[in-house]
Amino acid sequence: MSEANTPTVLLSHPMLSFMEPVLAAEGWRAVKAWEPPQAGREAVRAIVHPGEVRLTPPFLESFPRLGLIACMSVGYDGVDVAWCRAHGVEVTHASSLNADDAAEHALGLVIAGWREIVVGDRMVRAGEWTERRRLPIRPSLKGRRLGIVGLGAIGQAAAVRAEAFGLEIGWWEPWPKPEAPWARHASLLDLARWSDILLVAARADEANRGLISREVIEAVGPQGMIVNIARGALLDEDALIAALRDGRVGRAALDVFQREPTPSERWAGVPNTVLTPHAAGVTADATARMVEQTMENLRCFFAGRPLVSPVPPA
Amino acid sequence: MSEANTPTVLLSHPMLSFMEPVLAAEGWRAVKAWEPPQAGREAVRAIVHPGEVRLTPPFLESFPRLGLIACMSVGYDGVDVAWCRAHGVEVTHASSLNADDAAEHALGLVIAGWREIVVGDRMVRAGEWTERRRLPIRPSLKGRRLGIVGLGAIGQAAAVRAEAFGLEIGWWEPWPKPEAPWARHASLLDLARWSDILLVAARADEANRGLISREVIEAVGPQGMIVNIARGALLDEDALIAALRDGRVGRAALDVFQREPTPSERWAGVPNTVLTPHAAGVTADATARMVEQTMENLRCFFAGRPLVSPVPPA
Repeated sequence: MSEANTPTVLLSHPMLSFMEPVLAAEGWRAVKAWEPPQAGREAVRAIVHPGEVRLTPPFLESFPRLGLIACMSVGYDGVDVAWCRAHGVEVTHASSLNADDAAEHALGLVIAGWREIVVGDRMVRAGEWTERRRLPIRPSLKGRRLGIVGLGAIGQAAAVRAEAFGLEIGWWEPWPKPEAPWARHASLLDLARWSDILLVAARADEANRGLISREVIEAVGPQGMIVNIARGALLDEDALIAALRDGRVGRAALDVFQREPTPSERWAGVPNTVLTPHAAGVTADATARMVEQTMENLRCFFAGRPLVSPVPPA
Repeated sequence: MSEANTPTVLLSHPMLSFMEPVLAAEGWRAVKAWEPPQAGREAVRAIVHPGEVRLTPPFLESFPRLGLIACMSVGYDGVDVAWCRAHGVEVTHASSLNADDAAEHALGLVIAGWREIVVGDRMVRAGEWTERRRLPIRPSLKGRRLGIVGLGAIGQAAAVRAEAFGLEIGWWEPWPKPEAPWARHASLLDLARWSDILLVAARADEANRGLISREVIEAVGPQGMIVNIARGALLDEDALIAALRDGRVGRAALDVFQREPTPSERWAGVPNTVLTPHAAGVTADATARMVEQTMENLRCFFAGRPLVSPVPPA
């Protein structure tokens, strides 16, 4: 194959640098978006991309032969799918390949937050565990109510795990799911009022930006906890921080943020929070599956075959 | 009732100070062991006690009318039951009242350790999450092997929860349990070799001190994790620390320690550990049940009725 015909793939973000040898093993060429100068922009036919990071039309237009954006993530809220369709660019994503991984992290955040595991670790290391000073006594998880926003693959995987802990499960999303074995609440606000713990597991798009509003946050209330493993844009983060500071909501555990990486100073002095760096769906097992699926989408694209996991119709 | 006949109860440890108003509400008198001078030692007929704290015979002999030690805990390894029986002192404990609470904390430690939730929180707060720096990618929990040492009420409650995460379950204890739905391994060492994660949930006594030996720790191995929510005495803590330091075992999550409170300096620089301050079974729900059961044991004792939850025969 001549140099000019070598399939050329842009890696859009440094967190995907591990893909370079994978592409090379296939005999393809990788261009790294974070390493200027980028010789060969005109050769790029596909972009491998973390779907939560925004891709602007001017950036995309700088690749005249672009035909595919392959998101190595379940979500693809950073990609303007309508624009891509109008410009002949196909979009694929990782369809539910990390639902179990995200759900186990979600339950980890629920337990770590509710049962004070992170606070406990900090206390022991600071030498603040003494004969007279122990952790404040907290309610059990068992018997509490877990409200799940978005009963997709991740929400369902979280529900199955949570049930084994004796948590009562409720959920809400805009679409009824008659086959779901758990009760759908009439509205998000109803669910939030009912919940001891509100777990956000919905797909993010422009329509549901700020869905977890100040009103929803306050409905979860002073004894309640909000957990977000979906997308930062789904939650009014300023409202959450204010509510945590003055006790209108009890606690929060967040894996995703309005801006990522989230600035550490934003969280200084905000009580009762557990923060993880967008790690819920990122395991070796899930990554291996996503790499394989991404490569298969690229192979299909370069061979002119139908794609394995295109994003669903809008 | 005259002053001399008022039932008088010793609270043996400051962590039980919340019991004073409970005893007062019953019309009984509380003597606090941590507040000298203790007028009325001769009036004390019962001790309310955290079972993991050692009670020495000379201390017990200083209460001439002592007839009951009511442990507000499942474990009672700090109480010399044989000595008590020989001296006409009955012993009660909280029989399995916090198995669910301990199991949810155990799974919380498993997830927090395996999926780096505590490390992730530290990373975000230190401002060390950057575009290029994320958490190291870890294996999923799903599909890994959880070996449970001691399949009592806590071990079984942990197994049920772990199964919902897709963990494979194995166990070992000295006694076969034909009714258990999970595979018993031939020996502790076999179980440790098989396990990705070894969860210690056994009752502690003199016979199993140091059960989780250097050999067992090394059998769990460099990729494996040890979780202890039972008793510190069950585990060779010096051997564990040495193995963590030089990578012979991968990680550990501990709620119990050789000495409690554990000195913080003991853990400085010991990698891949999550530490909580003996909090697994201590929830508001479990405490309420334990208070009620302890009070019922005391009522029975003072009324000369059979006790509700005596410790089992040795």
